[in-house]
Amino acid sequence: MDFKTYPEYSKNYPLLLTTFMKRPVNLYPNEIGVVYRNPQTAEYFRFTWLEWYQRTCRLAKALEAMGVKRGTPDAPGDRIATIALTHHYHLELYYAVSCIGAVLHPINMRLSLEHIIHTINHAEDKIIFFDDIFLPLVEGIYDSIKDTVEKFVYISDKQGRPETKIENLITYDELIGEQTPDFEWPTLHEDTHATLCYTTGTTGLPKGVMFTHRALYLMIVHVGMMYNFSTDPSVERLGEADVPLFNVPMFHIHAWGMPYSAVFAANKLVLPGMFTVEGFCELVQTEKVTSTGLVPTILAMIIEYPDLNKYDLSSLKSVGVGGAALPLGLKAKAEKMIPGFTAASGYGMTETAPVTITAFTKKTMSHLPKEELEKLQVKTGISIPGLEVQVVDEQGNEVPHDNETIGEIVIRGPWIMEQYYKDEEKTAEVWRDGWFHTGDVAKVDEEGYITIADRISDMIRSGSEMVPTVLLENLTATADFILEATYFGVPDEKWGQRPMAMVTLAPGATQNEDDVFKFLEEEGVEKGKITKWMLPDYVLITDEIPKTSVGKFNKLEIKKNLDDYLSKAKKIR
Amino acid sequence: MDFKTYPEYSKNYPLLLTTFMKRPVNLYPNEIGVVYRNPQTAEYFRFTWLEWYQRTCRLAKALEAMGVKRGTPDAPGDRIATIALTHHYHLELYYAVSCIGAVLHPINMRLSLEHIIHTINHAEDKIIFFDDIFLPLVEGIYDSIKDTVEKFVYISDKQGRPETKIENLITYDELIGEQTPDFEWPTLHEDTHATLCYTTGTTGLPKGVMFTHRALYLMIVHVGMMYNFSTDPSVERLGEADVPLFNVPMFHIHAWGMPYSAVFAANKLVLPGMFTVEGFCELVQTEKVTSTGLVPTILAMIIEYPDLNKYDLSSLKSVGVGGAALPLGLKAKAEKMIPGFTAASGYGMTETAPVTITAFTKKTMSHLPKEELEKLQVKTGISIPGLEVQVVDEQGNEVPHDNETIGEIVIRGPWIMEQYYKDEEKTAEVWRDGWFHTGDVAKVDEEGYITIADRISDMIRSGSEMVPTVLLENLTATADFILEATYFGVPDEKWGQRPMAMVTLAPGATQNEDDVFKFLEEEGVEKGKITKWMLPDYVLITDEIPKTSVGKFNKLEIKKNLDDYLSKAKKIR
Repeated sequence: MDFKTYPEYSKNYPLLLTTFMKRPVNLYPNEIGVVYRNPQTAEYFRFTWLEWYQRTCRLAKALEAMGVKRGTPDAPGDRIATIALTHHYHLELYYAVSCIGAVLHPINMRLSLEHIIHTINHAEDKIIFFDDIFLPLVEGIYDSIKDTVEKFVYISDKQGRPETKIENLITYDELIGEQTPDFEWPTLHEDTHATLCYTTGTTGLPKGVMFTHRALYLMIVHVGMMYNFSTDPSVERLGEADVPLFNVPMFHIHAWGMPYSAVFAANKLVLPGMFTVEGFCELVQTEKVTSTGLVPTILAMIIEYPDLNKYDLSSLKSVGVGGAALPLGLKAKAEKMIPGFTAASGYGMTETAPVTITAFTKKTMSHLPKEELEKLQVKTGISIPGLEVQVVDEQGNEVPHDNETIGEIVIRGPWIMEQYYKDEEKTAEVWRDGWFHTGDVAKVDEEGYITIADRISDMIRSGSEMVPTVLLENLTATADFILEATYFGVPDEKWGQRPMAMVTLAPGATQNEDDVFKFLEEEGVEKGKITKWMLPDYVLITDEIPKTSVGKFNKLEIKKNLDDYLSKAKKIR
Repeated sequence: MDFKTYPEYSKNYPLLLTTFMKRPVNLYPNEIGVVYRNPQTAEYFRFTWLEWYQRTCRLAKALEAMGVKRGTPDAPGDRIATIALTHHYHLELYYAVSCIGAVLHPINMRLSLEHIIHTINHAEDKIIFFDDIFLPLVEGIYDSIKDTVEKFVYISDKQGRPETKIENLITYDELIGEQTPDFEWPTLHEDTHATLCYTTGTTGLPKGVMFTHRALYLMIVHVGMMYNFSTDPSVERLGEADVPLFNVPMFHIHAWGMPYSAVFAANKLVLPGMFTVEGFCELVQTEKVTSTGLVPTILAMIIEYPDLNKYDLSSLKSVGVGGAALPLGLKAKAEKMIPGFTAASGYGMTETAPVTITAFTKKTMSHLPKEELEKLQVKTGISIPGLEVQVVDEQGNEVPHDNETIGEIVIRGPWIMEQYYKDEEKTAEVWRDGWFHTGDVAKVDEEGYITIADRISDMIRSGSEMVPTVLLENLTATADFILEATYFGVPDEKWGQRPMAMVTLAPGATQNEDDVFKFLEEEGVEKGKITKWMLPDYVLITDEIPKTSVGKFNKLEIKKNLDDYLSKAKKIR
């Protein structure tokens, strides 16, 4: 008699992204699952879950036919890069590459060419899939990567192969067209690496971070638990009926996990290619989009859009805002202009896959008046269940929960990166004493709510005090006449550094620098929200604040051109 | 430089029940977390989360002081048994025992003494914790277990030690009173065994099933995902604000997971000791209970309770019914009498930890009229996400999804038992070809909904046909005048077996056996719900249907006394 116990199908049953992919196909094979709108042509592509799944099977077969090798927990599989926007092809790649045991490397094409070349060669990408509009980009870097990359796959809604100097090029349609629409997905070890993401490298070369199937799986189910625990009456429970629009690009840290969570939930996925205001509005109206994720600067673009009221946006129920703190003023404007708008802040980074801290209304607070709840929502939030998050001083001790003392955020848990890819030294800098050190500074209130204060490197050091720039930025943006605001330090003989404000005005606003300062005195100092020494010495009203490739204020860029900005600013005191 | 990567705090971060325990203490230290009402004295005991946590820390310390050994994935830790009802002591044991790395063995005291003795000696329990009311039971089996069990711990709300022949006895209060209220919980491997449950052993000796921290953790988060995906408008989203009353005893397969899920969700837990109708009604009213889990027979007891309308049960929002199929008739009655009542069926067994299949309204169905939705809710349901469930024929091929063809339910996934404890042969009987074979028979409809038909061993074989007893039981219970109904086979010369019905009448009903048969003809055969050959040859109206220790119809007991029942029954045709 055979006394087999099958641990591989019981206690070792692997947590694989394959499980996410199969759920909608099994439950809703003939429902429309994936909608892509080409932002250039406004053409729509719709797929049932079965159609999308069969395309993904074809792609998986084609990858194996090209000799793509599967990984083990100790040795990652072949790296497959994408230079691609947010569309069904990219979603097919997300699953086909990872679920055959290879490693998906989505490239942020907004990085400098030098950094793009570095990541491709550092990752040793075997194949690159790229969109037709990035042909010039790929041709431009071709000579620097052709020794690494074996094959180029051209993604286009249009038929045919382009004229190009790139050798070893095949089109996506040719590639999957050769294969039959069925595939036996392998039962991988859950610690097989699934993705490779690079940091944006604002302070040096981008660093690579690999995530395993297990890590991504556990991030998604724990974020799900957070929603499950929520008692916030303003949080819409959309479940399977959610229709999410992907505004966060798919090359940006797993698009905050949406390609995984939305597929597992069998939602209808709405993929806009890239963000355009008219594309956003049209898709919301046409597909009855219910939720989306945004960075504050994109939210600002929507609110400024003159044709906004021509569209029916009434299906929107939940707009999550992250990537940077959401200014109260921007939130107030958005609530007026976007029906059903509720905002939720959050925090994460490439190294954390990214979701770690989100807005959450504790059950003891859900009875609070709307005004109090909104103050809560502007705080960054609390840790996702299953993760350990602390704010610690330089000795590694937790700071008091007094909503005042600041310290560094440290994290550990099942979906925090283990190491920077092929970079032991940088790994040892961030992993110390059993905690991943984020380099971000925050305070914690009595209820455990964390508020991000700053990047350690962005802190303004005035005398012995640290000026919390995010606090100032949030306060400033509550002014009706201000759209966006950022703060940074300028050299000062007496204090070392003093704060300078850089703001953009709301459309139609005519206020000047003195009005900004006056607002800060009246709403900040007099109401006890900031102290007098935090008031900026300089204020600059400008047309545009420099941003990074992911839409955050680019403080490195600002510091580079500090003299120029300083010369245009008004010295207030 | 130290190039450590800390995989134990990132990709190997263990999934431990410790994480569940710590969440409410961190978030709500001073909120009432655990309420216990002694069913004999009607006395209440209330604990804040911090108080309960500190008691659990004391208990953990005491266990370690007694020399209780921690397990590894390859060797389970010491087994600690409980013969205990549903109270805060038991909840403390659930966490203290498992989270120090030992194995909790909750004993079902409704088993025969012979079986209780067997499980204690088979498990090699080092310590037994038992309630004061079970002192006679423990004294009764003392001589048969005293060579195995090193220590007995007496749990009582009353002060002092009992007069007893049991040596090595200490009271729970003495035990934890010696310890300080803080404890460093160990970082266990997630494959450390946490619990040992025994089957009820209706067909032989009880079999032991061990579950790891990982398995239980993953069951809870996947069940949470199921709720998260739900779009059923009748499913209340209670989240942290849920106030669950534990009706399923804590000695019964992890009380369906509630001691884990409710603690993780930081719910207020309402523990009734044991089920009594007045205790249930009083606790619902006093604690504003919002949800509970029941077996159909207990639901029937509540509905029959003459004082039911003296209590305010309006806080109840969700009453999940499982353990046996929920008769439509019983559901209809419950909906009339219990405000806010919504029912949900489910399926599971000791070997599956237990949750595997639950009611779920697919998003494509949530628009259906109430009547159609109710038909869906009577089906057993669909698989919890993350689990593979199939209904297969004898060759292991999936049966057609035609809602007619029956086959055996087979399952695999992260929280299915790996093996029967110290029983390789029995393990090999159920684990075949990579699937756990449940021994339960079911059919599947076009939408993937599974309906349990029977235990393989309970099937009535009439000629070459199988009579689906659960279908007949559900149909029969839809009669207004019938409370409960069960079916079983009686020997027949021509057909091998023919069905016999045994029913209990609703309070005040005066119908007879012919009325039962007539109902089946009119509502069953004439409306196409059953075929004529399924009609029973015999009908017996009785005062009570024999039940197992967990409240299911005891078909083994019925078969033992078949001649007696047959002699009292009316032969209809």
